[in-house]
Amino acid sequence: MRTTTKRLLAVAFVCIAALTSSVAQTADPLPSWNDGKAKQSIVNFVAKVTREGSPDFVPVAERVATFDNDGTLWAELPMYFQAFFIFDRIKALASQHPEWKDKEPFASVLKGDVKSALAGGEHALMEMAMATHAGMTTEEFEKIVKDWIATAKHPVTKRPYTEMVYQPMLELLAYLRANGFKTFIVSGGGIEFMRPWTEKVYGIPPEQIVGSSIKTKFELRDGKPVLVRLPELNFIDDKAGKPVGIQQHIGRRPIAAFGNSDGDLQMLQWTAAGPGPRFCLYIHHTDAKREWAYDRESSIGRLDKGLDEAAAKGWTVVSMKDDWKRVFAFEKP
Amino acid sequence: MRTTTKRLLAVAFVCIAALTSSVAQTADPLPSWNDGKAKQSIVNFVAKVTREGSPDFVPVAERVATFDNDGTLWAELPMYFQAFFIFDRIKALASQHPEWKDKEPFASVLKGDVKSALAGGEHALMEMAMATHAGMTTEEFEKIVKDWIATAKHPVTKRPYTEMVYQPMLELLAYLRANGFKTFIVSGGGIEFMRPWTEKVYGIPPEQIVGSSIKTKFELRDGKPVLVRLPELNFIDDKAGKPVGIQQHIGRRPIAAFGNSDGDLQMLQWTAAGPGPRFCLYIHHTDAKREWAYDRESSIGRLDKGLDEAAAKGWTVVSMKDDWKRVFAFEKP
Repeated sequence: MRTTTKRLLAVAFVCIAALTSSVAQTADPLPSWNDGKAKQSIVNFVAKVTREGSPDFVPVAERVATFDNDGTLWAELPMYFQAFFIFDRIKALASQHPEWKDKEPFASVLKGDVKSALAGGEHALMEMAMATHAGMTTEEFEKIVKDWIATAKHPVTKRPYTEMVYQPMLELLAYLRANGFKTFIVSGGGIEFMRPWTEKVYGIPPEQIVGSSIKTKFELRDGKPVLVRLPELNFIDDKAGKPVGIQQHIGRRPIAAFGNSDGDLQMLQWTAAGPGPRFCLYIHHTDAKREWAYDRESSIGRLDKGLDEAAAKGWTVVSMKDDWKRVFAFEKP
Repeated sequence: MRTTTKRLLAVAFVCIAALTSSVAQTADPLPSWNDGKAKQSIVNFVAKVTREGSPDFVPVAERVATFDNDGTLWAELPMYFQAFFIFDRIKALASQHPEWKDKEPFASVLKGDVKSALAGGEHALMEMAMATHAGMTTEEFEKIVKDWIATAKHPVTKRPYTEMVYQPMLELLAYLRANGFKTFIVSGGGIEFMRPWTEKVYGIPPEQIVGSSIKTKFELRDGKPVLVRLPELNFIDDKAGKPVGIQQHIGRRPIAAFGNSDGDLQMLQWTAAGPGPRFCLYIHHTDAKREWAYDRESSIGRLDKGLDEAAAKGWTVVSMKDDWKRVFAFEKP
């Protein structure tokens, strides 16, 4: 009987909570978005797919929404935040690698010459990632990321990187989830670089992160099972790799996808090509004052082909300058 | 106002549903399990990790449970069910491959000589999988699997393969989910061979399936994006590959793992080695009458090292004969 009473109390509590949130839901779920075409297109899409009995209704299980991370959920300038992590790791590990003093791109990093360090492009960055992201267990790497993200600061704003997330996108994530969507990150960044903090910052759990990865190997070390990170590429989750990563991890085509660059184009194409209602959105970095303004000519987050395809296909393009009341939570509203 | 009224009605409905299910929950959630040590160990573990305030309490987000499929959720004899699928595909495709008539292992399959077809072991099976699982788009393959699983019959019971699932395990999956667990399959079988039917049969959605895979490639075919399945191995999710697959897909160590063979041992070791309460369970195929009896000497689903390790570590071992009231739903209870 006591158990039954407890259950009834629990149910009553849930009911009160539901009534309260039911009333609260009448408030604007996207307060950092200016009224306009972009916001309206989001609200219309969500209303359409959640309206039972409508021909556009999508069952909850199929409400999959995928988000790029760099430049879509958090900033990506002056360079990908993971590159700052890599550079900090090189400095931290330098004493164990005396050979790095004379070996590029490591030597330039240690001299603080970012430009030369990155002159080798993707290849150089990959080499540095391998040298700093492998050779330890998955648990050790998780701790390294957690320690770094808790203390490192963005060079321009001097804010923790986890405060460099876009407030309107946090609201959008929560709004979609409140409407039965499962939200995923599909990023070119390292999967294990994101997982230690995405649940806290975005409300997205580790199992809903898709990203680039290196191989790991299971071992028993003195009887204790560990997964060792190997300096060997497993998967690059960028461009044509994004639909591949989505199929591999999710196994279901998203009905909504959000990106900011040509690296997201194939994810948006893949999303748009499914049957039934579809939603594709590009963040356009148009705000030089509150964030950065860049698109067709940028080396990071270039949005060129994507901008043309969005126009041709009627995808939503969000102008950060015009569509967002504020960009970061730390701004005065 | 009408919207508010609708919401209140919806909430009232949820409350009634919750009260009803609250009362229903007092019924035994595992009716096909005999009372005994195995059932008790499951119930004790679930009670322990869900009791708020207890030192063993595990937050909902961390309640990850992983299940092997072949021999753990459904049967695996006289051979892995996916092998029947492969053989049926070879027969269906034979007219397009006249060369198979003189080429092993295909020739033996076409002659109905299963034993010779499988004489080449894993390698032969892999060759046949590549020849029949690649060369089409992911959507085409999904349809092939759906059509097959809807019509194919088990050679011994003459039942659809989806009826060859263990009723006590279906109850266990539902029981764990009712207690806040997220249930995953972690199988050596093909990930895209499972996804088309696991949601309907087990209540496990595609994004919670981890399995073996081949590579895919994104292409635009006449402007239409497709993912083409390539005859190239991507990942083998078996033995030491299981913890690797778990980390790759889930990014979080399970607190409970369920298997039936030495191929699951590393998954159970990985699960057991985490901090806090852990639960590892082996299904022991002891029922020659209702299913099959096999363990240390079997070529499929061999349980040898695992049986010793379970005994040494106090893991739960389920005797199908003694612990299950019924094995399949189609049995008379």
